[in-house]
Amino acid sequence: MSEDSQACLIIIGDEVLSGRTQDLNLAYIGRRCDELGITLAEARIIEDDEDRIVACVNECRALYTYVFTTGGIGPTHDDITSASIAKAFSRKLIRHPDAVEAMDDYYDTGMLTEARLKMAEVPEGASLIDNPVSAAPGFQIENVYVLPGVPMIMQAMFEIISDTLQGGEPMLSESIASNLGESVMAQALAGLQQQYADVAIGSYPYFKKGKLGVNLVMRSRDAARLAELGRRLQSMIVDLGGEVVG
Amino acid sequence: MSEDSQACLIIIGDEVLSGRTQDLNLAYIGRRCDELGITLAEARIIEDDEDRIVACVNECRALYTYVFTTGGIGPTHDDITSASIAKAFSRKLIRHPDAVEAMDDYYDTGMLTEARLKMAEVPEGASLIDNPVSAAPGFQIENVYVLPGVPMIMQAMFEIISDTLQGGEPMLSESIASNLGESVMAQALAGLQQQYADVAIGSYPYFKKGKLGVNLVMRSRDAARLAELGRRLQSMIVDLGGEVVG
Repeated sequence: MSEDSQACLIIIGDEVLSGRTQDLNLAYIGRRCDELGITLAEARIIEDDEDRIVACVNECRALYTYVFTTGGIGPTHDDITSASIAKAFSRKLIRHPDAVEAMDDYYDTGMLTEARLKMAEVPEGASLIDNPVSAAPGFQIENVYVLPGVPMIMQAMFEIISDTLQGGEPMLSESIASNLGESVMAQALAGLQQQYADVAIGSYPYFKKGKLGVNLVMRSRDAARLAELGRRLQSMIVDLGGEVVG
Repeated sequence: MSEDSQACLIIIGDEVLSGRTQDLNLAYIGRRCDELGITLAEARIIEDDEDRIVACVNECRALYTYVFTTGGIGPTHDDITSASIAKAFSRKLIRHPDAVEAMDDYYDTGMLTEARLKMAEVPEGASLIDNPVSAAPGFQIENVYVLPGVPMIMQAMFEIISDTLQGGEPMLSESIASNLGESVMAQALAGLQQQYADVAIGSYPYFKKGKLGVNLVMRSRDAARLAELGRRLQSMIVDLGGEVVG
């Protein structure tokens, strides 16, 4: 674990836990955190349940530099994230005038219904995160960033906040695929991992187009070390009688 | 939250957190838990890091009836799940004779290398979970079930253990798609949710083939209540000027 900024993603949604909806937000935020030099150390997927949201947010905001949440900020009865986060911070839930104004601009006259106005409710003292797609904002309160579940809108909001997040050097990664099995290279790989303790090497078997192989993924903030280890891994593969593929 | 068996899934893998690999095991286990009448209450995705694995497993096994882990039980240096779980339970890591025998049957003579034998290591006292695909087993220790990350093998092992898990009535679900927006139906929907407090209604906007709409998902263990609410929701959609689609 590094000394850098560490983040946690909380995905709020029964539909993800039931297997009905495939979450796509973790992959996006994971990739962006790497680029921003922030370690996404954990993700939790929890039910749409007030007690669970309150407990999880309070635990994670004490543990991590940044907490991102996705899901549960729409207009319907099952959207309880904003109210739950207000409760986690012991704040009142208020209708934010700037959110109302942004939504009033966005909707045709008469279409800003009471249901939609629910999306203007945030914990008192929270800062809004603009929604360039459909007006209803996200918000930030201390180190917690509350984002929607719809990937396109979540991504647009994440880009807006990304400039304000304190990261380090970007995490770089390179991968090398080979036609060798994991077991064949395990010993040599462990030796190289010891020599390059500053580069994390992951080994991931795959089965693609009828062929077995292994993807070796190197992760480091140092491009030179990454390139050097890449050459060593390629030699290792050839020495073991395999070849680099893909 | 119900009084029934509650489960937690711990996905161990840097490659999922980095966004490089899309997890598919949560969706499978979520669906199977519904069928088995077990509530999958939470999933956590954590780094390949011994301290984190130990802390997470110990926290979750105290909280939930069942804990499933996926990932990190292969032959390479980054596969540290078995050793970490032994540590979480303060047990020694031993080479299980039955695992060695199963793998010896599976591999050709001379192919059961030291690297592969690492996959026969489990915490002392753990029960093996057979691997009908590629021999190297998973294991169970108390309420923790340790499974591989490769979906095909994970699924085969999950089916083997599923008969031994204590569930309740299966969770049933039905969904109704309509061409109405969420905000239009929010109020009527909240009213029906109050009347049918025993059925969870989730509302999920979608954008498919250029059309906006909402998927309403009902979840309950009572088929009759589900059918009754389904008819009410269909009427609601029509009364609000929309139609049921798909």
